[in-house]
Amino acid sequence: MKAILNHRSIRKYKSTPIEESLLNEILNAGVRASTTGNMQVYSIIVTTDQEVKKQLLPCHFNQPMVTQAPVILTFCADFNRFNKWCVQRNAKPGYDNFLSFFTAAIDALLVAQNVCIAAEDNGLGICYLGTTTYTADKIIDVLKLPKGVVPVTALAIGYPDEQPELTDRIPLAAVLHREIYQDYSAGDIEQIYAAKEALPLTKSLLEENKKETLAQIFTDIRYNRKDNVSFSKVLLKVLSDQGFMNNEM
Amino acid sequence: MKAILNHRSIRKYKSTPIEESLLNEILNAGVRASTTGNMQVYSIIVTTDQEVKKQLLPCHFNQPMVTQAPVILTFCADFNRFNKWCVQRNAKPGYDNFLSFFTAAIDALLVAQNVCIAAEDNGLGICYLGTTTYTADKIIDVLKLPKGVVPVTALAIGYPDEQPELTDRIPLAAVLHREIYQDYSAGDIEQIYAAKEALPLTKSLLEENKKETLAQIFTDIRYNRKDNVSFSKVLLKVLSDQGFMNNEM
Repeated sequence: MKAILNHRSIRKYKSTPIEESLLNEILNAGVRASTTGNMQVYSIIVTTDQEVKKQLLPCHFNQPMVTQAPVILTFCADFNRFNKWCVQRNAKPGYDNFLSFFTAAIDALLVAQNVCIAAEDNGLGICYLGTTTYTADKIIDVLKLPKGVVPVTALAIGYPDEQPELTDRIPLAAVLHREIYQDYSAGDIEQIYAAKEALPLTKSLLEENKKETLAQIFTDIRYNRKDNVSFSKVLLKVLSDQGFMNNEM
Repeated sequence: MKAILNHRSIRKYKSTPIEESLLNEILNAGVRASTTGNMQVYSIIVTTDQEVKKQLLPCHFNQPMVTQAPVILTFCADFNRFNKWCVQRNAKPGYDNFLSFFTAAIDALLVAQNVCIAAEDNGLGICYLGTTTYTADKIIDVLKLPKGVVPVTALAIGYPDEQPELTDRIPLAAVLHREIYQDYSAGDIEQIYAAKEALPLTKSLLEENKKETLAQIFTDIRYNRKDNVSFSKVLLKVLSDQGFMNNEM
């Protein structure tokens, strides 16, 4: 609980490497996560080599932590291993479809979150690299991921060299619905985002970005339609190329 | 760490309800998970009403725990709330595409795993309901999920009424790759699955299902091609119906 409540994303790391035994302990905690039918249809690529990290750097939009953090973990939906086992056991795998990709992605993401909590519980810091899905095609090239394998998220991990504040969240009630979904009125939306919009951070972001509202910073800059559409195309093509879109019978 | 290492899925629950304050504490731990750009593009539907649970029961293939567990949590990718905020703030949301769905799904899944660990750390048991993606269309109807909202996983949660053994896992080394992906040889596959195939559980499953290999139990029964293909079509249609497949510029 303490590790969970104290989570902050760390973007500056000490050069201290992570002891092999500690890294193993954390990864072992990762694989205790629930997995569909105990199939464990995921893989984790552990990157510590500075040369490989340099190749990953542009895939993660040149965020300095990619080469600064001692370890980058790339979590992949992986049916390659399971399919090979099926074929060697006179069984015909039927996992070349979207549902199977999504099942494997869920498996990989639950492992990733276990790894985060185990890492933080051991004094390490982590940061998710959301860029993983944007440049999945390039990451596949760098990490030599075969058919049946798609990267879904990545983590920078290491000893923290900063102590950021806890990030704000919208009120818990705003993300909860009792029994069934209660849609939001205009008044609800005003209330939910009022505190976030009043933060000093928001005011400085508006000035810096010359925008009228915080929402515009998201829609026009950080997560704009043009990027989203182009990344969507990349990701759907990756799913197809990696063999997960053969949905016909 | 202890909670993570002791995880087992619980399928039998006591009728004892979860105290409101404890449930809140756990859900609060949930929303501390990392979230893309701090957008929190997820919602959690908390179902405790027996009537609503009965409606969810067939969506989860009539698994008794759905009505037996005091609480069912359905985790949804949710851009509905964020989109409404954008519109009210003179910002044009561009989140009607596959990338945005997947971003929101990641957000929702990290929250779900935090909730699991927080629950288990407090003496509760959990079980993921993988059926959520198979019948997302029906769950949308039952929980009245509007456009922009897609259920990605669900949890049964409550006080355990069983103490199952720790589930087996393939060796950690089998899911790890150093620096880049090292593809599996036939010999690797033999080694990786040897211990699982030798389990007494495997032998009884083979007899029970009259199958030659454990892999065939997966490919022919549990996760067969016909179901996977039909669930894939449902899920892709749901993404389209809920407004996440408008990938053209």
